[in-house]
Amino acid sequence: MAQRKFTLAESQIPTSWYNIIPDLPAPPPPVLHPGTHQPVGPDDLAPLFPMALILQEVSGDSRIDIPGEVIDVYRMWRPTPLYRATGLEKALDTPARIYYKYEGGSPAGSHKPNTAVAQAFYNAQEGVKKLTTETGAGQWGSALALACAIFGMDCEVWQVRASFDQKPYRKSMMEVWGAKVHPSPSDVTNAGRTVLESDPDSPGSLGIAISEAVEVAATNADAKYSLGSVLNHVLLHQTVIGEEALDQMAMAGDTPDVIVGCTGGGSNFSGLMFPFLREKLAGRIDPVIRASEPASCPSFTKGEYRYDFGDTIGMTPLIKMHTLGHSFIPDPIHAGGLRYHGMSPLLSHIYDLGLIEAEAIGQNECFAAGVQFARTEGIVPAPEPTHALASAIRVANECRESGEEKVILTAMCGHGAFDMAAYDNYLAGGLTDYEYPDDKVAEAMQRIPVVG
Amino acid sequence: MAQRKFTLAESQIPTSWYNIIPDLPAPPPPVLHPGTHQPVGPDDLAPLFPMALILQEVSGDSRIDIPGEVIDVYRMWRPTPLYRATGLEKALDTPARIYYKYEGGSPAGSHKPNTAVAQAFYNAQEGVKKLTTETGAGQWGSALALACAIFGMDCEVWQVRASFDQKPYRKSMMEVWGAKVHPSPSDVTNAGRTVLESDPDSPGSLGIAISEAVEVAATNADAKYSLGSVLNHVLLHQTVIGEEALDQMAMAGDTPDVIVGCTGGGSNFSGLMFPFLREKLAGRIDPVIRASEPASCPSFTKGEYRYDFGDTIGMTPLIKMHTLGHSFIPDPIHAGGLRYHGMSPLLSHIYDLGLIEAEAIGQNECFAAGVQFARTEGIVPAPEPTHALASAIRVANECRESGEEKVILTAMCGHGAFDMAAYDNYLAGGLTDYEYPDDKVAEAMQRIPVVG
Repeated sequence: MAQRKFTLAESQIPTSWYNIIPDLPAPPPPVLHPGTHQPVGPDDLAPLFPMALILQEVSGDSRIDIPGEVIDVYRMWRPTPLYRATGLEKALDTPARIYYKYEGGSPAGSHKPNTAVAQAFYNAQEGVKKLTTETGAGQWGSALALACAIFGMDCEVWQVRASFDQKPYRKSMMEVWGAKVHPSPSDVTNAGRTVLESDPDSPGSLGIAISEAVEVAATNADAKYSLGSVLNHVLLHQTVIGEEALDQMAMAGDTPDVIVGCTGGGSNFSGLMFPFLREKLAGRIDPVIRASEPASCPSFTKGEYRYDFGDTIGMTPLIKMHTLGHSFIPDPIHAGGLRYHGMSPLLSHIYDLGLIEAEAIGQNECFAAGVQFARTEGIVPAPEPTHALASAIRVANECRESGEEKVILTAMCGHGAFDMAAYDNYLAGGLTDYEYPDDKVAEAMQRIPVVG
Repeated sequence: MAQRKFTLAESQIPTSWYNIIPDLPAPPPPVLHPGTHQPVGPDDLAPLFPMALILQEVSGDSRIDIPGEVIDVYRMWRPTPLYRATGLEKALDTPARIYYKYEGGSPAGSHKPNTAVAQAFYNAQEGVKKLTTETGAGQWGSALALACAIFGMDCEVWQVRASFDQKPYRKSMMEVWGAKVHPSPSDVTNAGRTVLESDPDSPGSLGIAISEAVEVAATNADAKYSLGSVLNHVLLHQTVIGEEALDQMAMAGDTPDVIVGCTGGGSNFSGLMFPFLREKLAGRIDPVIRASEPASCPSFTKGEYRYDFGDTIGMTPLIKMHTLGHSFIPDPIHAGGLRYHGMSPLLSHIYDLGLIEAEAIGQNECFAAGVQFARTEGIVPAPEPTHALASAIRVANECRESGEEKVILTAMCGHGAFDMAAYDNYLAGGLTDYEYPDDKVAEAMQRIPVVG
């Protein structure tokens, strides 16, 4: 009987985060000021972020120590288990060996607390009283609400209206942890009111919600803003996932041939694969590394790699990334999360360097993978990681045909307990495989400022 | 910094279940045939249960080996962690040391799969094609749906209508695992139709749902019935919780002075405390052991200890237990689960022997404990274990006054991700502290058959 679960001791929680930037063959492009188009400095970011996080954002160090207070909170749910998917392998009748690193055991049910806790800690340390943020499906907002409760800070969240309406219980969970939650667009910010004036029934988007949260942080001296993905320091904090997984794959005595992860803003995928990419760049292993994204929000596979705003209103600096355009509004029928218009600039850069691949998958294939996983591995996955699962199953099915015994590693970044309406919809045959059209991408590119 | 999490290795999953019956100072009273009032034999139970489980129900052996196939499934989520509640202790400013054994990391989010998997296994082994059951809050139905998916069996669930309406996503989860779910009372059984004729708007009860599930199992040769609590073999399967906790308390270097657990049918509480009670009966430790139940469903503290039916219609054998009467219908405003009219006969016997205590708590105190726990320990508890938590907090507060450094151990038997409507209601001030009235107990006793 193959071992099913690979568990580390509490003492094996990583004590540092891994910064991949110094190990890359070329540095990522700079972040630009939206007015001058000149590189921004730490002071430009100070209204929004505490200095400790700004310094992490631009750090050239390979390793950044994790504060003891953060590790102490990590110990609530870390180290997380690595599982061998013996039930799924059997159902697929594949010679492939499938492993998944499961982050759904955190109190918020996803990988998001790995960075939320770190961000709340550094903010609290610098005297910040309140954090503002946006959330889509609610996983990030929940994680930040939890982290703020732990460090005794206020938390104010703008949740994309489509999700706010579809997933009322994520809001309840944030409230249990003491956060205040607004549907976005809301009437409490200028950004929200501007959107509502032109479209009172706007389903919202992460870009709009970011505008709202940034506005409140920028205009309130006691508040800062916190982002759940995209930025370098967020990806950095998630590398605890991959560092643990490296140790656990060694326990399992296997080396991944293929690593797949889902991408919205890119933090979960980066968190798992950066430490493996380090090993690959050093020539010690040679896995294919592949991002899996929704066909309805295909920033890697259809977006352009260029400077764009991180939000919809255009309040943020310009960042070079794969983007569908900051005016992107996801289709409300898309149930699978991962709705951000852009992709992490660091991950976009790594993709541009040819170090990783990407594919886009329709949501019926993803939910089918999710149901098969639930019935064989027990865990009901959040819609987001079903994209990675669908990619993993594609590889496992190829192995069944070819007879190859590939080792597949994937990130099961969260459970689906708050996504049952989406599963209901899938089981009732109500999901369509909407593909984001090329002409909408071309049109959105017209609205992006041209840099240099 | 106190260690927060005590984790066992996969190899430390118990390999046998512990049967407390031979260690008790007196044997529990027999189960009686509803017609003859004579003790039932294994053959009387054969229409409903597979022989392996019937033999466990009446076993005099102290130890029953756990089949390898069951342990293989347990490895999905076992061993479960024991936590020291360092965050809660700090918030309470108590010298008490509080530990909780957390079962919410199972795929179904509670301790229920510990027995669901065992029951599905033995049924599958004896050729049963379908299991029927009842569920209240949905935790048990989810667990059995999961277990049936794993062993390739059909699963049909009758869910108490009040919960079916309040918690639609538990139904969705059962459906993701492939189960068929009916609201109870339903029009697909004689029992359900009888209830609906006299009360078309019946909110249902566990007793009614049991009648429906038993009827379908009894009249279908390929189907058997499965119960999520109350019976000896169910409590037996849950003892893996307490066996692990004994090892983990030893790791922590502490011995419990007080053990508290919530009780509905009694399986979670028994699972944790039976191995500790064994140690207490052997004179090795001397904890106070206390059951915590809802003031709205107080079977220990207000129910009478006498023979009664396990279901509402009167199809089951007569069992001697603490009961509010089989005609009991819980108040629909009660949000906290634990709604069964009776208490496990084995646990009732142990209570009658004076080996454990019980207290009843109103739901506002329980939800307040749940919110405080969420904000300090991260995990949002299911309403059921907030009863145990409220009891634990009472003891911890006494320790703050007295200065005693008591060691408290409690069972955190599930997470509250499917209970957010109840938390919403609590946070909005909408929960009342309904106490089940004495005169309703007295009245219900009139409807119970008198046993010689």
